[in-house]
Amino acid sequence: MRKIKVAIWGFGAMGSGMAKALLKKDGIEIVGICDLHPDRVEKEMHEVLGVERGENKEVFINGNIDEVLKEGECDLCLCATDSFVKKAFPRLKLVLEKKINVISTAEEMSYPKAQSPVEAKELDRIAKENGVSILGTGINPGLMMDLLVLTLTGAMTDLTHIKSERVNSLSPFGHAVMEEQGVGLSKEEFLAQDKAGTLAGHVGFEESVNMMTDAVGWKLDGPLKTSMAPIVTEVPRETPYIKVDAGDVAGCAMLGDGYVNGEVKVEMIHPQQIEPQLGGTNTGDYITLTGTPNINMAITPEIDGGIGTIAMCINMIPQVLNARPGLKTMIDLPVPRCIMGDYREALEIELV
Amino acid sequence: MRKIKVAIWGFGAMGSGMAKALLKKDGIEIVGICDLHPDRVEKEMHEVLGVERGENKEVFINGNIDEVLKEGECDLCLCATDSFVKKAFPRLKLVLEKKINVISTAEEMSYPKAQSPVEAKELDRIAKENGVSILGTGINPGLMMDLLVLTLTGAMTDLTHIKSERVNSLSPFGHAVMEEQGVGLSKEEFLAQDKAGTLAGHVGFEESVNMMTDAVGWKLDGPLKTSMAPIVTEVPRETPYIKVDAGDVAGCAMLGDGYVNGEVKVEMIHPQQIEPQLGGTNTGDYITLTGTPNINMAITPEIDGGIGTIAMCINMIPQVLNARPGLKTMIDLPVPRCIMGDYREALEIELV
Repeated sequence: MRKIKVAIWGFGAMGSGMAKALLKKDGIEIVGICDLHPDRVEKEMHEVLGVERGENKEVFINGNIDEVLKEGECDLCLCATDSFVKKAFPRLKLVLEKKINVISTAEEMSYPKAQSPVEAKELDRIAKENGVSILGTGINPGLMMDLLVLTLTGAMTDLTHIKSERVNSLSPFGHAVMEEQGVGLSKEEFLAQDKAGTLAGHVGFEESVNMMTDAVGWKLDGPLKTSMAPIVTEVPRETPYIKVDAGDVAGCAMLGDGYVNGEVKVEMIHPQQIEPQLGGTNTGDYITLTGTPNINMAITPEIDGGIGTIAMCINMIPQVLNARPGLKTMIDLPVPRCIMGDYREALEIELV
Repeated sequence: MRKIKVAIWGFGAMGSGMAKALLKKDGIEIVGICDLHPDRVEKEMHEVLGVERGENKEVFINGNIDEVLKEGECDLCLCATDSFVKKAFPRLKLVLEKKINVISTAEEMSYPKAQSPVEAKELDRIAKENGVSILGTGINPGLMMDLLVLTLTGAMTDLTHIKSERVNSLSPFGHAVMEEQGVGLSKEEFLAQDKAGTLAGHVGFEESVNMMTDAVGWKLDGPLKTSMAPIVTEVPRETPYIKVDAGDVAGCAMLGDGYVNGEVKVEMIHPQQIEPQLGGTNTGDYITLTGTPNINMAITPEIDGGIGTIAMCINMIPQVLNARPGLKTMIDLPVPRCIMGDYREALEIELV
């Protein structure tokens, strides 16, 4: 059987990380890259990644998606271009209409019906019409604060409360994330931006919580009650990308409560900051489930967000190719797993 | 839509526990129980369970499976009668041939091709011929030492070693388990029985390890290298079922190593004992993954084995009903989740 043919749309940290990881895998090949960034466009992929090309064909990064993706010449496109469903929609539609399966890193795509039910239905219809599948995934939303929680509830006969906590470091991330999270601002600036609604913070609480409540069968009273608080540092902190003075903002603590019949049933706690150890914070992923039995899980330190998102996307490729056509979420498909053998052995379909 | 109709074959601790749990759920009903135990046979189910019958129909425990299971009158049978595939096979075949879906608690059924490939193929064929599905599951094998491990590897781009550890208490269990695990024996008796091959210990390592290595794409060199060691207590220990003197065996530590190309890639560690706190042992489930990134997970205390198995079986009912016909394992189906709403909302099929 021929190799699985994959294209990547968006060659930033996530897209290029997926390419690097896929180049070490068997039974799968990268057949096209679409990216517009002037540092990368028209350059050869292996060169941009700084890896030996060996016997692989040359792949030139192309700014024109219609030249990269041709019907019948690609099995799946990894789309690492957006965070929001409405912005990603036209791109995802374009790929599906070429009869190419999709895995999207867009946080909202992990459970698009939570905030964009119309677009979600439309993506499902387009995917089915074209005989392909589309999945949104990543480390969070996608695994740590939702799918992993659900997996653990599988061992419970009764569930009354979910607490899902991810305490992680922002140190590996660059300027864009620092801005989204308000790192480097004074406390006053942070609060003003939060009030004005210009701070993004973490994207994904609505998706994670709706995925979980739909799966267990709870009806949310409405949107989550969320809040964002500045994590003010008492000592100066520094990363390769930013310097924060004592008294300024080193991170952002997002909280989200999901109510069912007037009661908080799901509690999301997600403080993110640079150099957390300087604030005496131990990073980790923590899940606390109340019911029969109670379950307390800790993963320390936290699973790296960048590697984790790259891994989830490339590890879910077989599940997406095997799936019946339509829009899928992580609760519809078999669990992800790190594929160390030939990718084709995980397929239940024939590649033609 | 009518309720999901479930029968239970085997009404010991697991079967009766599933019945109790299902009676609290919506959209699902128990339509038959098969059990031969003289304490239970011909008695009414609610009475045996000690729960109010309310508006439920009476269900009399029946020793004749052909009277309990009738084609078209039952959607799924929970089979809690066996540990081994070869012993369970004729029973499972009988259920499938009545066009009834199956969930089995038999440890070896969690990955039957590991040790009974002929029977596994045959069950797959029979299930497909009759348009139904069959799944083996439970807490271990089924979740703690295998599926949960795989789910976490989903966040890794590279995996080099798996260590899966379950340290649990045997205190809730009765005489049968004490015998299987050698609890109460002198150290010499334990070693003699181990040498003679008459101690069962934990059943499921081959299944858990083959599930994991198949999923990630590693080829095992052959059967696991396993060992069993007595856990000798320094102080007397006691449960409602057994008294163990200082110097005698309070439990059994099973180890299993899975080799790939001459190297240990999977390490299974599973010490089980009564009253572990008297030996200074903290119970828990621990997963240690080496690769990119490394992952360290701890669940403390361990997830209760009895409740956990009951939960896994009843929580997987919708996935089995939704599945395409055939023999399924936990890596083929969407993740388990604690169903707190109406069971029918989790169905993708119509009940007729």
